[in-house]
Amino acid sequence: MKYIDLDKTESYRNLSGLAGTKRTLAALLNVDRIKKYMAPMGAGLQYSYSAKLVDDPVLAALQKLSDEQELIEKYRAILDGETMNTGENRKVLHHLTRGQLGKPVIEKGRNLGEFYAEELNRFQAFTDAVHTGTIHGSTGKAFSTVVQIGIGGSDLGPRALYLALEQWAVRAGKKKLNAKFISNVDPDDASAAISGINMEESLFILVSKSGTTQETLSNELFVKAKLQKAGLDPRKHLVAVTSETSPLAHNPDYLDSFYIDDFIGGRYSSTSAVGGVILSLAFGPEAFKELLAGAHETDSLALNPEIAKNAALLDALIGVWERNFLNFPYTAVLPYSQALSRFPAHLQQLDMESNGKRVNRFGEPVAYSTGPVVFGEPGTNGQHSFYQLLHQGTEPVPLQFIAFLESQLGDDVEVDGSLSQTKLKANVAAQIVAFATGKSDSNRNKEFTGERPSSLILGKQLNPAVLGALLAHFENKVLFQGLVWNLNSFDQEGVQLGKILTKQVLSGNSGNPVLDAYSQLLAVK
Amino acid sequence: MKYIDLDKTESYRNLSGLAGTKRTLAALLNVDRIKKYMAPMGAGLQYSYSAKLVDDPVLAALQKLSDEQELIEKYRAILDGETMNTGENRKVLHHLTRGQLGKPVIEKGRNLGEFYAEELNRFQAFTDAVHTGTIHGSTGKAFSTVVQIGIGGSDLGPRALYLALEQWAVRAGKKKLNAKFISNVDPDDASAAISGINMEESLFILVSKSGTTQETLSNELFVKAKLQKAGLDPRKHLVAVTSETSPLAHNPDYLDSFYIDDFIGGRYSSTSAVGGVILSLAFGPEAFKELLAGAHETDSLALNPEIAKNAALLDALIGVWERNFLNFPYTAVLPYSQALSRFPAHLQQLDMESNGKRVNRFGEPVAYSTGPVVFGEPGTNGQHSFYQLLHQGTEPVPLQFIAFLESQLGDDVEVDGSLSQTKLKANVAAQIVAFATGKSDSNRNKEFTGERPSSLILGKQLNPAVLGALLAHFENKVLFQGLVWNLNSFDQEGVQLGKILTKQVLSGNSGNPVLDAYSQLLAVK
Repeated sequence: MKYIDLDKTESYRNLSGLAGTKRTLAALLNVDRIKKYMAPMGAGLQYSYSAKLVDDPVLAALQKLSDEQELIEKYRAILDGETMNTGENRKVLHHLTRGQLGKPVIEKGRNLGEFYAEELNRFQAFTDAVHTGTIHGSTGKAFSTVVQIGIGGSDLGPRALYLALEQWAVRAGKKKLNAKFISNVDPDDASAAISGINMEESLFILVSKSGTTQETLSNELFVKAKLQKAGLDPRKHLVAVTSETSPLAHNPDYLDSFYIDDFIGGRYSSTSAVGGVILSLAFGPEAFKELLAGAHETDSLALNPEIAKNAALLDALIGVWERNFLNFPYTAVLPYSQALSRFPAHLQQLDMESNGKRVNRFGEPVAYSTGPVVFGEPGTNGQHSFYQLLHQGTEPVPLQFIAFLESQLGDDVEVDGSLSQTKLKANVAAQIVAFATGKSDSNRNKEFTGERPSSLILGKQLNPAVLGALLAHFENKVLFQGLVWNLNSFDQEGVQLGKILTKQVLSGNSGNPVLDAYSQLLAVK
Repeated sequence: MKYIDLDKTESYRNLSGLAGTKRTLAALLNVDRIKKYMAPMGAGLQYSYSAKLVDDPVLAALQKLSDEQELIEKYRAILDGETMNTGENRKVLHHLTRGQLGKPVIEKGRNLGEFYAEELNRFQAFTDAVHTGTIHGSTGKAFSTVVQIGIGGSDLGPRALYLALEQWAVRAGKKKLNAKFISNVDPDDASAAISGINMEESLFILVSKSGTTQETLSNELFVKAKLQKAGLDPRKHLVAVTSETSPLAHNPDYLDSFYIDDFIGGRYSSTSAVGGVILSLAFGPEAFKELLAGAHETDSLALNPEIAKNAALLDALIGVWERNFLNFPYTAVLPYSQALSRFPAHLQQLDMESNGKRVNRFGEPVAYSTGPVVFGEPGTNGQHSFYQLLHQGTEPVPLQFIAFLESQLGDDVEVDGSLSQTKLKANVAAQIVAFATGKSDSNRNKEFTGERPSSLILGKQLNPAVLGALLAHFENKVLFQGLVWNLNSFDQEGVQLGKILTKQVLSGNSGNPVLDAYSQLLAVK
């Protein structure tokens, strides 16, 4: 396989040429196109791209780009366990946490698919023991609350998934434990999280692959001090999710430890023990397995080399078209589902940490834009907030809507002849059309220029399998975009300098007068 | 006063010329500058702009721009009650909800400063009666929970402020009622909010200036149905915050109604009854008055024509420099305080809905970029998420840090020789320097180019007065930027088309085949 920069491909010239031709949504959009421009995403989800600024020639050029950059071959290489995280000399195996799609992956004589499956079985057996009360706190009381202590990928993904299913689980009679999260080194975060819970009935999951994350270790000691103050034995209230080589592994300070390895990146770890322990504890093992099955189905669809049948690939390529040929620097994710309130925050990490990079996989600066800024809030809330700029700002922002035919909880009210869920969906249809085609008006302040592209991810109802598919779709989209841009999407060297300088500040010995001056301003010492 | 487009000013040419000269933070940053480039913001807050890409010539040109665009005179005109929301032919009076800085504002014989003060007194008397149990639910039980039903400005600001002070109030012994929020027309939002509360002890605040907001009225009926089902009398469990001309005013269906008017825009309404009722109920009348006093102090500092002494004005002008002369399309807000978790979401509305506009106050298209995309999450969480792109992405994103010397709750732990709060602050200092000056490395993947500008808002501790000052700072910053761009920052015509098309969809009679096709796809009917 060849790894070449986007601007060195033949497709780059093709697409640049195509971008020189003006195309408008006003001219492109019609009923047939809305029916035709759809691709299956798994778990019944559909990706609708009729309101994107693409036409058949652009799509054909994107197909060529996919073929030229050998995206499916490279995806297969990831699945087969090749060392695709080149900078860190690691495999990229998060897909394997939800099923085998490539060759068996053997590392130092161990089949890693089996290893992940064993850990899944282990933590689900642990989960069962917590639910039955066999495993309990140091005073013998059953656990009623689980608190995840982790940051970044150990927090955002699991938290977004927990919130997405919390009420679903209540209604389905599957809610087992209440969950909380502590992430920030700001001591107010841990203090607030703990203030409302009964420590005697609380189980804490310490999540850190390296076992050395500053925030997580500080918060662990914060929690341990509180447990001790309450007369409880911390060893009976803590489990660890970590790698086998970390100080948290095989450590009697924890009830148990569940393992991931260096081949599961933080932002891709929601389907490993990082998300699995807390989600299984909260909603039961079955719900988490359904989530894995949804993700696995979506992963398998991403193997299709035909972009019209591979939603993640298509979404990725349209994003590249928007980023590098239409020159949009951002993307908004707009879920019309309150349960997905923190899903955009997870996608923000997933996308911006994977592809916010200025050098290619060989460490050479690239001459084109890479990952966009990603932001978003649930609709219809966003409509009453930042949509003003989306509709009438000076530059268009590409949009990604997410919607479901049915509400998650089935608890609704009819007002003025329609259910709230119907109004919610009517708003989605209205917004897509308003953004695409706008409205002329003799009062320019009331004019909408339109030509603001959007896509729609549409499902029947948000449940664990659908959520798994949604998660995997975006993981694979980001992966494909990184491959188009010739990046290594799986390292994050950009977080290192801040860590180094923080240590210098705390040691009081930076040797950098500017850094010392800011430290003084902040009264660090 | 003259209202002219930014690109028609003399300053525009000056600044364009200055932007042609390359300046680097590596060359500019030094210890003296860090001490000098600070401006007071009120309530003890400081605005530090030493890590912004400005120097004395740029600052002098920005001062000239401020003078040429008559920003202080126009701010005075707003305070004096002139009709500055020209499109809607309205005054702009949110400053008046926290004190009088301009002339008395008389409308149809009524002194509006007195009107807002009377409403404040009325709802604070109501608050006292709820706290003493004089006002209670229909079964005689005292209220323990208050639920705000509102969307956009009736939700984001009040919610951000509530979360910012919730734990502070608990620790200060001032927490009176627990608060929840229902905003989205998604029925899952109301259903989830209600599922965990005792309806018998719950008071609902219906917030809609017009009394016709689709989401809010649907959620009102949702809640009323639940109250009735629980055998409760909705009239004893609902109050309204609305305008005197709305259907919710003087209406026996509510325990009481508190009034705002058309001169308080939604996104600027947190210091009116829109934020005041719920914050006073939750934390007591005194805390809300302290918040008002902090905002008022900050409003008064914004009258200073000298930009070095007017933090809101300076922040606004530096933002214009970054947007129109350095061409950055976005800004990230990064509070190093978990209590400010939803403050960026409020600022997103405040900024993007005010200045996300492509026509000037006369309805003529402008030839320059206006409001940027605003996004953000608390640090250090963001460091483990999207900071990778901020440090090593292909384009710089201007940053606004917010930090406090002391934690809000005073509950901390020492690990490795430092408190968590110390680590938090050390991270802020480290990030500012890492972004500004970067780090060279022979491995380009570990190289940081730096030259990524940031500012820092620094306070002693987050309390109601400081929060009020912070809120007012950003309101005034956005106001000044709108004036530089010659916009009307106080209307939001960009939200209208979606509302119209939604109604067409729901009536089943759009006459628009494309809209009908999307409605069908979403199974609206």
